[in-house]
Amino acid sequence: MERVFSTQQVPSWRNQITFRAIVTSLLLSIVFNFIVCKLNLTTGIIPSLNVAAGLLGFAMLKGWTAMLDKCGLLKQPFTRQENTVIQTCVVASSGIAFSSGTASYLLGMSSKVASQLDVGNDPLNVKKLAPGWMIAYLFAVSFVGLFSIVPLRRMMIMKLKLTYPSGTATAYLINSFHTPKGAKLAKKQVSMLFKSFSFSFVWAFFQWFFAAADNCGFASFPTFGLKAFSQKFYFDFSSTYVGIGMICPYMVNISLLLGAILSWGIMWPIIETKKGIWYSANLSASSLHGIQGYRVFLAVATMLGDGLFQVIYMLIVMSAAVIKQKSKKSESSSSNNNTPVSFDEQRRNEYFIKDQISNLTAFGGYIALAAISIIIVPLFIFPQLKWYHLLLAYLIAPVLAFCNAYGCGLTDWSLASNYGKLAILIFSGWAGMQHGGIVAGLAACGVMMNIVSTASDLMQDFKTGYLTLSSPRSMFFSQVLGTAMGCVMSPLVFWFFYRAYSVGDPHGSYPAPYGALFRGIAVLGSEGFSSLPHNCLKLSIGFFIGAMVVNLLTVVLKKYETKYGLYRFIPSPMCMAIPFYLGSYFAIDMCVGSLILFIWEKKNKKSAKELAPAVASGMICGDSLWGVPAAVLSMFGVNAPICMKFLSASVNTKVDSFLGN
Amino acid sequence: MERVFSTQQVPSWRNQITFRAIVTSLLLSIVFNFIVCKLNLTTGIIPSLNVAAGLLGFAMLKGWTAMLDKCGLLKQPFTRQENTVIQTCVVASSGIAFSSGTASYLLGMSSKVASQLDVGNDPLNVKKLAPGWMIAYLFAVSFVGLFSIVPLRRMMIMKLKLTYPSGTATAYLINSFHTPKGAKLAKKQVSMLFKSFSFSFVWAFFQWFFAAADNCGFASFPTFGLKAFSQKFYFDFSSTYVGIGMICPYMVNISLLLGAILSWGIMWPIIETKKGIWYSANLSASSLHGIQGYRVFLAVATMLGDGLFQVIYMLIVMSAAVIKQKSKKSESSSSNNNTPVSFDEQRRNEYFIKDQISNLTAFGGYIALAAISIIIVPLFIFPQLKWYHLLLAYLIAPVLAFCNAYGCGLTDWSLASNYGKLAILIFSGWAGMQHGGIVAGLAACGVMMNIVSTASDLMQDFKTGYLTLSSPRSMFFSQVLGTAMGCVMSPLVFWFFYRAYSVGDPHGSYPAPYGALFRGIAVLGSEGFSSLPHNCLKLSIGFFIGAMVVNLLTVVLKKYETKYGLYRFIPSPMCMAIPFYLGSYFAIDMCVGSLILFIWEKKNKKSAKELAPAVASGMICGDSLWGVPAAVLSMFGVNAPICMKFLSASVNTKVDSFLGN
Repeated sequence: MERVFSTQQVPSWRNQITFRAIVTSLLLSIVFNFIVCKLNLTTGIIPSLNVAAGLLGFAMLKGWTAMLDKCGLLKQPFTRQENTVIQTCVVASSGIAFSSGTASYLLGMSSKVASQLDVGNDPLNVKKLAPGWMIAYLFAVSFVGLFSIVPLRRMMIMKLKLTYPSGTATAYLINSFHTPKGAKLAKKQVSMLFKSFSFSFVWAFFQWFFAAADNCGFASFPTFGLKAFSQKFYFDFSSTYVGIGMICPYMVNISLLLGAILSWGIMWPIIETKKGIWYSANLSASSLHGIQGYRVFLAVATMLGDGLFQVIYMLIVMSAAVIKQKSKKSESSSSNNNTPVSFDEQRRNEYFIKDQISNLTAFGGYIALAAISIIIVPLFIFPQLKWYHLLLAYLIAPVLAFCNAYGCGLTDWSLASNYGKLAILIFSGWAGMQHGGIVAGLAACGVMMNIVSTASDLMQDFKTGYLTLSSPRSMFFSQVLGTAMGCVMSPLVFWFFYRAYSVGDPHGSYPAPYGALFRGIAVLGSEGFSSLPHNCLKLSIGFFIGAMVVNLLTVVLKKYETKYGLYRFIPSPMCMAIPFYLGSYFAIDMCVGSLILFIWEKKNKKSAKELAPAVASGMICGDSLWGVPAAVLSMFGVNAPICMKFLSASVNTKVDSFLGN
Repeated sequence: MERVFSTQQVPSWRNQITFRAIVTSLLLSIVFNFIVCKLNLTTGIIPSLNVAAGLLGFAMLKGWTAMLDKCGLLKQPFTRQENTVIQTCVVASSGIAFSSGTASYLLGMSSKVASQLDVGNDPLNVKKLAPGWMIAYLFAVSFVGLFSIVPLRRMMIMKLKLTYPSGTATAYLINSFHTPKGAKLAKKQVSMLFKSFSFSFVWAFFQWFFAAADNCGFASFPTFGLKAFSQKFYFDFSSTYVGIGMICPYMVNISLLLGAILSWGIMWPIIETKKGIWYSANLSASSLHGIQGYRVFLAVATMLGDGLFQVIYMLIVMSAAVIKQKSKKSESSSSNNNTPVSFDEQRRNEYFIKDQISNLTAFGGYIALAAISIIIVPLFIFPQLKWYHLLLAYLIAPVLAFCNAYGCGLTDWSLASNYGKLAILIFSGWAGMQHGGIVAGLAACGVMMNIVSTASDLMQDFKTGYLTLSSPRSMFFSQVLGTAMGCVMSPLVFWFFYRAYSVGDPHGSYPAPYGALFRGIAVLGSEGFSSLPHNCLKLSIGFFIGAMVVNLLTVVLKKYETKYGLYRFIPSPMCMAIPFYLGSYFAIDMCVGSLILFIWEKKNKKSAKELAPAVASGMICGDSLWGVPAAVLSMFGVNAPICMKFLSASVNTKVDSFLGN
């Protein structure tokens, strides 16, 4: 690969972070923050937007430099290092949009979510959301992670040669863009992305006209009849989730659908027949002591079971890999000089070692930032969280960050939110409900999640940088830049939606399921099992164990049953748990996406492989971006002119006679 | 072409009309009668269903013979002559579905249509519809035409070598089916037809669930907003008309849309502002003295202007051709033996001359059938129509039938319904309103239309037969058979819809526009211009002349402006007139069809040319055939469970508060 590029000069790290790259990153960051925020607030399912970010970044800068070149004003050609810088910055910033928890732990502190759960709805366990303190909090906790495992980069990238599938894929994408053949394909992909972007934007715009009020429009289309609709089984014509379905693996989509069928199709109707026996019949529909409690806690139990299993499993895999590596090393130490190093590797190592970040910077940075955070967060933002809580968190965090970065390097699966959930349980229990344990737990979750997730993101980007000959220093700085952008933008974008819509309302357009689910975990941690309705503990334990068993089964099958690959047909408990709370409409959308991809692959495997991610990204971006004008219209009180309403035949007769009079 | 088939033996004419061919024809006739009837009752636009009939006939018999062949039971192979017999029979029978006038002149006699026009709504000028007398009437008038120009077939097919584009195309289609390469393409086409058939059937089925009442469902979708919807501008999601749009030339669809914009977009709103000045404000919405009068009579004037022009133009073209032919003949008579006759032509001539229908049969048949009709029709069915009316009609008819068959042979454009419209004007004026002139005119229209249209259909089929080496005798018999099938089926199928729905209601799902339009012509003929509302006469004359001028312009441009082919961009007045009455929803559907075809042709011209007609036929058949179960459900009073309703935002608020209480 590197031979193709050998004639090109690699710019110095300062020239990799160009002004145009920063502007492009900023624009794309805004776009992706809106997209991620909207996804967060609807279902919390965030697909990989790397392809979209890569394509759009490439298209924007390529267009810009081509234009300058034509005018004869181009001073510095567009390099793949610059492209990597943009990619890193955008991914970092939209990573913050996720780990900032505006739709999970921070939203879980709001009185809106608290009032739904009717446990711990007191001033100490609630914090009014405001963009000011949210930005301050994110700045205090988000940068620590970047310094936590920087010193280990040479070991993880060069010595252990961890794969980091996403990082590697991104690097190959960027490398390919800058070869003539790759550029041609990229052009085709960009054109498909814009086509599907325009289609989904126009489609979302068209849908808007018919949604004058709640229960109007395509989002309330009872595709499978009114009975199924009342159980949340319908296709809601959202091109976003169809697109996400095209990106996510088939099994994820099927797991979601299975989870929905299991919960809304079977379990909830059965539990609802016990109304008045298992739980009081007088409760409000969203009370945590009623049917909603079963929904929340069974989802939480499944997620915790799955998460705990993953954490344990990852530790085992990691230790095994480290032990293996060590024994290999001692074996190969003697024959070290003999191993032939390829041209690619030689060149990559050379550039990776060239610009250094000293260990002193790393350790000093970590300690300084942690200290600031330990002082500021308890003092000014969350009095419920004590300094010793944070001190402990910052002592454990680097270990977890390393674990996660290592696991992510092996399997591409970041467990940041699992570590966060465990942190909620631990810290909310430690603080106790009467001392504001819920807020303390949720705030600690933020600390943990941010460190763990930014650390593994950074390592991922180092891998991308390694493969594109980008300097680690430029990677680090663009990551810092992206993080800073994210810390400012993410709360502001969230605030934009929060002001325009009733965010967190389980029956509205923005249910933000993780708000209630994360708060549910905190309630569990600080109150214990006493908060659960009747029989819910038994069921929860069942689902907790069930999730672990299913995962264990997958692992065992993967290892020992290689003939048919049966493990591929075992659903993921984590995915099954999301529709427990939300219902299945988005799962149906995503299965439609799977179906489209499946047919496309049957017809033309090559074209599907090349273009499907671009089409899907376009669909996601177009539909999600319509959310911006829609929110603006909603803020200014502009309503759609038409209501497409779905009435049963008998109600329709009544309405007709009412309108006739 | 014939060399390919030279090894195959041509079966005798009795073996061309096999039992399996008759059964297949019968089944397809039923299907096509339903389709044509449904189209007749919705907009009256009938596309060419030849491709669908050809493909389905081929698929059915090919499947059947292939199955028998596998079982070793096949006695007689499937020949192209047999295929031609099926094609002829099906086309004849669905031709009757059109010329039987169940949606035009017969429906125009019903009191339902009469009451809408509020002129001539008296017992003498109304006839209650019933399947019994309709079948009898059709039998009395439909067979005469078959005998009228049979003796001229050798002259028209062999000597004048008229092209008959549709007949020739059908023959090439059938010939191609029976070559190995053609069979492969046919298989692909059949598969596409079935795919689009299934899609449109399922789509229609899905739509049904949401149409619990009037103004519910996809057919009332205000695609361009409620304001546009009230002016009948909307896309009604009917795959039938999208399919028809794919078959019809681009200019037809654009003409329809232009007509709709001119009338519903511009003229009617202007005329409606004159309410109370030009016409009384107290009239019912469907009164012929109000706005509806302008709609009906302007459409009628345009159609008559266009029709008259076409008739005159055709006479001129025909005479010119005859004169040219004569001069050529006298020139070439000396060199007659020198003209080389191709193998194809030689073989075709041989088989075309082999089986004869004697002139005695033809003349005798015509006179006998005309006599029966002259006696039966005035005596038992329409006392308003006198025997001397009919006698005159049968004396002129053969001349008109020849003109039409000749014109059709040159241009593929059958003017049967134009002759019918002229017949209404003449005979309703002759009989006079006080003697039931409306019914007399409409009944005479039936006589004329049936003769003229069956005669040209038969000649068309002779051409197909000539090119596929089918015997003229088998053609004639299958035509007779198809006509008989049509005479029985067409009224029964019509009755099926008539019972199930409110046919002829301009605001319902089955407006059957030609019912009111044909009756409008009869009113004009028997009452004169006194029946028109204020200023309507001036406007009508304007449109009458306008239609002629536009046609003249087209002819002149076609002849003298050959560089850009500007004539292709001149709309057809006949097409523009249909939406005057109906609005534009189907024109929008059809333009969507055009758009799909246009994009398809841009992407892949070859595949569009080969497969688009099959796809379009499938869409038409699937959607139309859903009409059968839908009508059955409607008859048994089964209503759809859901109403998809479109309310303005303000009405929606009212309804929500009403439902809330």
